[in-house]
Amino acid sequence: MEEIVALCKRRGFVYPTSAIYGGLANAYDYGPLGVELLRNIRRLWWQYFVSQRRDMVGIDSQIILHPKTWQASGHLNSFYDPLVEDKVTHKRYRADHLIEAWVEKTGSDIIVEDLDIEAMGKLIRERNIKSPDDNQLTLPRKFNSLVKTYLGVVEGGKKEVFLRGETAQGIFTNFKNVLSSTRLKIPFGIGQIGKSFRNEITQGQFIFRTFEFEQAEIEYFFDPEKNDWKKLYKHWQEMMVNFVNKVLGVDKKNLRWRRHTDRERSHYSKETYDLDYKFPFGWKELWGIAYRTDYDLKQHMKFSGKNLEYTDPKTGRRFIPHVIEPAVSTTRLFLMVLVDAFIREKNRIFLKLSPQLAPYQLAVFPLLANKSQLVNKANEVFLSLKNKFSVYWDDRGNIGKRYRYQDEVGTPFCLTIDHQSLKDDTVTIRDRDTMVQKRLKISQLNYYFSNIFL
Amino acid sequence: MEEIVALCKRRGFVYPTSAIYGGLANAYDYGPLGVELLRNIRRLWWQYFVSQRRDMVGIDSQIILHPKTWQASGHLNSFYDPLVEDKVTHKRYRADHLIEAWVEKTGSDIIVEDLDIEAMGKLIRERNIKSPDDNQLTLPRKFNSLVKTYLGVVEGGKKEVFLRGETAQGIFTNFKNVLSSTRLKIPFGIGQIGKSFRNEITQGQFIFRTFEFEQAEIEYFFDPEKNDWKKLYKHWQEMMVNFVNKVLGVDKKNLRWRRHTDRERSHYSKETYDLDYKFPFGWKELWGIAYRTDYDLKQHMKFSGKNLEYTDPKTGRRFIPHVIEPAVSTTRLFLMVLVDAFIREKNRIFLKLSPQLAPYQLAVFPLLANKSQLVNKANEVFLSLKNKFSVYWDDRGNIGKRYRYQDEVGTPFCLTIDHQSLKDDTVTIRDRDTMVQKRLKISQLNYYFSNIFL
Repeated sequence: MEEIVALCKRRGFVYPTSAIYGGLANAYDYGPLGVELLRNIRRLWWQYFVSQRRDMVGIDSQIILHPKTWQASGHLNSFYDPLVEDKVTHKRYRADHLIEAWVEKTGSDIIVEDLDIEAMGKLIRERNIKSPDDNQLTLPRKFNSLVKTYLGVVEGGKKEVFLRGETAQGIFTNFKNVLSSTRLKIPFGIGQIGKSFRNEITQGQFIFRTFEFEQAEIEYFFDPEKNDWKKLYKHWQEMMVNFVNKVLGVDKKNLRWRRHTDRERSHYSKETYDLDYKFPFGWKELWGIAYRTDYDLKQHMKFSGKNLEYTDPKTGRRFIPHVIEPAVSTTRLFLMVLVDAFIREKNRIFLKLSPQLAPYQLAVFPLLANKSQLVNKANEVFLSLKNKFSVYWDDRGNIGKRYRYQDEVGTPFCLTIDHQSLKDDTVTIRDRDTMVQKRLKISQLNYYFSNIFL
Repeated sequence: MEEIVALCKRRGFVYPTSAIYGGLANAYDYGPLGVELLRNIRRLWWQYFVSQRRDMVGIDSQIILHPKTWQASGHLNSFYDPLVEDKVTHKRYRADHLIEAWVEKTGSDIIVEDLDIEAMGKLIRERNIKSPDDNQLTLPRKFNSLVKTYLGVVEGGKKEVFLRGETAQGIFTNFKNVLSSTRLKIPFGIGQIGKSFRNEITQGQFIFRTFEFEQAEIEYFFDPEKNDWKKLYKHWQEMMVNFVNKVLGVDKKNLRWRRHTDRERSHYSKETYDLDYKFPFGWKELWGIAYRTDYDLKQHMKFSGKNLEYTDPKTGRRFIPHVIEPAVSTTRLFLMVLVDAFIREKNRIFLKLSPQLAPYQLAVFPLLANKSQLVNKANEVFLSLKNKFSVYWDDRGNIGKRYRYQDEVGTPFCLTIDHQSLKDDTVTIRDRDTMVQKRLKISQLNYYFSNIFL
C-alpha cells in the first residue's frame, strides 16, 4: 500500500490536499494522471449504466438541497457515527472501529455490525476496551455526519443547510420532474455522479474513505406488484460485477458478496449486500446495493405534501414505486483499479491498467531530441493520433527512462521514431506488459490502435 | 427567455432545485437532457484546452481546501459584495445592481464599475436611490461571499473551513506537486473543472448566476522575462473565441470583448477582459481572462513558508512564474448554447445544437409499436448504433409527435423504420434543421454518422 501511495504522489495521480499548508485530514486532490484515470472511470460507468440502456437516464442535482430533504430522508436523525473520546488525549475515535480491532486481537466472536450504540458502550465498559494510546474511553455518543453550512444573504438572516451526504436524495426529489419531462415508463432508473460530504472519523486508508468524495448512484424504480424485486436485485448485482470485471478489467477472485446483518442495514433498506474488494488492508466494501423499498418517496411525500405516486398507464393504478440502489464511490473504484493494476517486477514497476482506463493510451518518442528530422517525424505521428487517442509526448532523456516512466503511469504502448523510421516510415511499438517490441507502418497506426482502444 | 426556461423544465434540461419543498433561491438541477448537454460541454472543453495540447494538464482538487488558502489568496478580505437593506421590508440587495438600474432609468453617465463601496453609499444618499419597493436603503456593507462550513470530528472541536469560491486556488496550491510529478517545463498550464460556491445576491436570471456553480478554469504559467504576456494573452483570447465559435457552434456576432476598468479589476489582476455574450437580458460576461501576474504564488509562498519558485532548467535562474487565467462557468456556457440554439418557427420549436453537443445524436423509431417485425428491425438498428452514438428509442405516439419531441431536445437526426425497411433494408433519415427526409441503407448508417459525429 505504501508503494502505491508513493507512486501516486511521485507520478501525479493523487496528492494530499493543501500539502503546502500542512494538509487537511482525509483530503486528497487528483493530479494530472489521476484526473484522467478518474475521468475514464466516470465515463465508463456512465456509458455502461446510463447511455447504453434504454431504461436509464442521468441527472445532476445540486450538492446543497433544501434542508427538509434530510429531515424526510431520515439523515438528520439516523445518519451518525458512534464516537468515543480518549479521556486523556481527547482524541476521538469511532467506537465500532475500536471494537473491531479488539475483536481481531482477542479473537472474540462478537459481530460488530450487530451492535447498537448502547451495546457498544456496554461492551467497552465491561471488557475495558481502551484507546490506541491505552487510555480509558468515554461512552459512545451519536455524531451526525451531515455537513452543515449557511446560505447567508437571503432575507431574514442565515439559513442552515447541508452538504449532501449522498447523491441519492437529489434523485428522489426529482422523481416527478423526470417522469413528467421524459417518456419513461416504469421500470426505469436514474443515475447520478457527484460529490458528497460526510463528517466522519476515518482510519486514514488513503483515498478509501474521505471527508469529501464522489459517488455514482443509481435509483431503479419499479412496480412491486409487477416486477419481482429479487430478480431485479440479481440483475443489478450482475451488472456491478460485470462492470468491475469486464469493463474495468479487475480479477473476479478479488471480489466477494457480503450480506448485511439485520442490525447493520440502514434504516431505509430491506436487503443490502456489499460487493467487497480485497484491498491491501483487507476485504472492504467497494459497492453497496440496497433495496430501499418505497421508503424515500413515501417520506418525501409526507414531508412535502406532494403526491409522488406513479400511475400505471394501462390500468390507471396508482402506487409509490419501490427502488433498488446500487451505490459506489468513483474514488473507491479508482483505488481498486490502482491496487489491482500495480505490479512490481525485478527491474520495474508497472500499472497493468486496461487500455480504456489508462491516463495516456499512447506515448510518442523521437529517439533523439536534437535530431530535427526525428522530432519532425515524431511530431507528425503525434498529430495524426492526438485527436483520436490520448497521447503523451516525451523527447527527453534516454529511451529506457522514458519507458520506465510510461510503465509507472500505465501507458499501454510506446511509439519510438528512430533512424529506421526515416527510411521506411515505420515506428517501434513497445508493449507495456510484455515489453515486446515490433515495428509497424505509420500509415497503419490509426487503424491498429482504433481496434484496441475504441 | 421565458420560453427557454419553460422548454428546459418541460423537456428535462433544467429543474429548480428541491421544487417539491418550495425550491431554494438561485439553485438548479440538471435533468436527463441537461446532464447530457453539460457532459458534452465539459468533454469538449477538456479536449480542446487540455487533452489536445502538449503544454496543458488537468487536475481535480477538493472543494474544501485548507482555510489558509483563502487568507493567502485575499478572498477572506476582498471577496465581497456591497449589500444594502430595504429599511422597511429588510430585503437585501446588491448596491451596484440597484445603482445600475437607477443609471439606466435616469440616463446618468456614472460608471458603476468605477464606484467603490464608499462612493456607492454617497451616491445612494445624495441621489436618494431607493429599493424596488420604493423604500429607503441602508448604507452598503461588505458581505463576504465565501461559504463557511465546519469539519467537526477532529480533535479540538470544530474547524472552520470554506467551500471554494473559485477552483483556481486548488491549482496554485498544487503547482509544485504538478511540477515535481510531471515532466512539464514552463510555459505550461493546468486546467480544472469543478464546483464552486458564492454567497451572492443574484438577479434571478435563471442559471446565469447561481449560488452553486461549475467552473472550468485554466492557470497558464510562464516566465515573464522570456514570454511576452501580451502575446500569450492574445493567444488565449483567440482560443476562447474559437472554442465558442468553432467547437460550440455559436455565432460570432453575439460575442464582444469588454475591458475591465481599473477599479473594476480584481485585486490580483493587471489586465482583465470579459468575453461577453448577448443574452436575452443583455450583454453579459460569458468568460473572463485575467493576467494574475505572480500574485497568487507569491501570496501562497508568504503564507505557507514554502518555496514555490520555478528553476529554469537551462540557466538555473529562479523566479515566480506569472499566470494568465481564462475562467468560465460550464453552466453559463450551457445557457449560452441553449439561447443560441433556440429557434421558434411557425409550426415548431427546435434547438439547432451542434451535433457534438446534442444530448441525443440520433433517435430510432419503429413506425408502429404493435408490428413486431418493425420493432425488431428498429431494435437491430438501435443496437448497431448505441455503442458508438448517443441514441434515443421511441416507439410511442404518431411520428409527427415524435419528431416534434426530438426537435425540441435538439436531436440532429431521426431514423424511422417503416414497411419499406422490411423490403429493402433502408431507413428514413429526417434532418432536424431542414426537415428533409432521405433513405439510406442500414448497412451504411454507421459509416455515414461516423463522418458527421466523430
